[in-house]
Amino acid sequence: MGQALARAFLKAGHPTTVWNRTAVKADPLVAVGARRAPTVGDALASGTLTIICLADYPAMYELLDADNVELAGTTLVNLTSGDATQARAAARWAERRGARYLDGAIMAIPSGIGTADAVILHSGQRADFVVHEATLAALGTVTHLGEDHGLAALYDVAGLAMMWSVLNAWLQGTALLRTVGVDAATYAPFARQLAAGVAEWLPGYAEQIDRGSFPAEVAALETDARAMAHLIEESEAAGINTELPKLIKKMADRSIAAGHGGEQYPVLIEEFAKPGDAAH
Amino acid sequence: MGQALARAFLKAGHPTTVWNRTAVKADPLVAVGARRAPTVGDALASGTLTIICLADYPAMYELLDADNVELAGTTLVNLTSGDATQARAAARWAERRGARYLDGAIMAIPSGIGTADAVILHSGQRADFVVHEATLAALGTVTHLGEDHGLAALYDVAGLAMMWSVLNAWLQGTALLRTVGVDAATYAPFARQLAAGVAEWLPGYAEQIDRGSFPAEVAALETDARAMAHLIEESEAAGINTELPKLIKKMADRSIAAGHGGEQYPVLIEEFAKPGDAAH
Repeated sequence: MGQALARAFLKAGHPTTVWNRTAVKADPLVAVGARRAPTVGDALASGTLTIICLADYPAMYELLDADNVELAGTTLVNLTSGDATQARAAARWAERRGARYLDGAIMAIPSGIGTADAVILHSGQRADFVVHEATLAALGTVTHLGEDHGLAALYDVAGLAMMWSVLNAWLQGTALLRTVGVDAATYAPFARQLAAGVAEWLPGYAEQIDRGSFPAEVAALETDARAMAHLIEESEAAGINTELPKLIKKMADRSIAAGHGGEQYPVLIEEFAKPGDAAH
Repeated sequence: MGQALARAFLKAGHPTTVWNRTAVKADPLVAVGARRAPTVGDALASGTLTIICLADYPAMYELLDADNVELAGTTLVNLTSGDATQARAAARWAERRGARYLDGAIMAIPSGIGTADAVILHSGQRADFVVHEATLAALGTVTHLGEDHGLAALYDVAGLAMMWSVLNAWLQGTALLRTVGVDAATYAPFARQLAAGVAEWLPGYAEQIDRGSFPAEVAALETDARAMAHLIEESEAAGINTELPKLIKKMADRSIAAGHGGEQYPVLIEEFAKPGDAAH
């Protein structure tokens, strides 16, 4: 990923200094115009914007939390994967060391870096983002989420939850339809259309959540629950896995038991917002 | 829904005869040009295409399985909600009664009927669909799925599983982000973009399933599993529900335990295709 990030900056014409613990790994970048820093400290001193992308947060401290590494005056953009607590702690640490700090999350694979498809999320002080936004834009579609340094990590896992959920629902449907001879390629365009269509409802449904009012403009939750029973029955009859259908129905049943059967689906936010797991 | 279906035919200029057990319910349709049939038998005799949309399949037999109801020569399109087994049994019954039979599922709300947004699925003999396709198109975007009369019911629940899964993943993310002060309206466009983006991957991923080969072209399942642990940790730290994140990880862990950690996400089809529920 580091290679891809450096290449994107070089391609956009930005003077780019690179450093890797294994110096030879920078050779391909040097060949396309990067300057190789002999030390981490030299790399930091070479510009005002430093991008890091490491294995984890402890690796960052191991690398940068040393007396001979000068962080004052730099803006550190940390694209290492981690959680919100780690991101907030890193921001406090960087501040103590005199650095500006933005935490980031890359929602892309290396081959996507440098294209608009690469969504890169940033959180931290807006001013720190704005100063470097035009430079960071060389990497992809860059966004500032807010001042809480933990936001990038939280949006990242929320987005991944959507990714896995779309894939799992598609796998459930694919498994079901394969039992009657429909192949995956035949079903996929239908699943794609459904997922993309439902995605369009989210902003409107979000208004219901923010208002805390869930009138059944489209359908009542109890109508959904009856169809959920069909999904379980069809999955059982087909001899495929029923865990996802059962979880879907369990969440809805819980909301209906709490008196929300006549309201609309987003009322389930009240169940999702409560602590709970399958053991309860 | 019956009202909406009849209105769409009338609007498209098709001579339409209507019948309802409670005759007065047809008044608004008669006012816009429908002919009111005095009996079910008369309604069936008035044309070659009969659309029914009832509370359930038993209601259909109660209405039509009588000696004085002539079904021979009609094509019955049954848009009543039900399951694949009911649809196949209805097809056999209709055949014995001398009728052509298509089973259907409406993926729309009444206000959407008559627009392209109303997806209406049909299954049964293709010739029966083709004869009436131009007429049925007055109702929305009509599709013929295949000859197995159960297909419409199966696609219906598969599509609903996608709908509920997109909504649940969005609710999980919304609940998580609300704990740090992000409102639902702020998060929704991001969730929409993710869902629509992942939907585009499905046809390509389907090719892996149909080939039965899952090279990690984008990411290996074990990389996903590490991020799934983050999702669970963030949800626990935020004090929100963890059932969906735990199910997501459980399915992946099971596939990794079966030796597929180095393969790509669609390899999970092997887990979704196996019988199983949360009790195991």
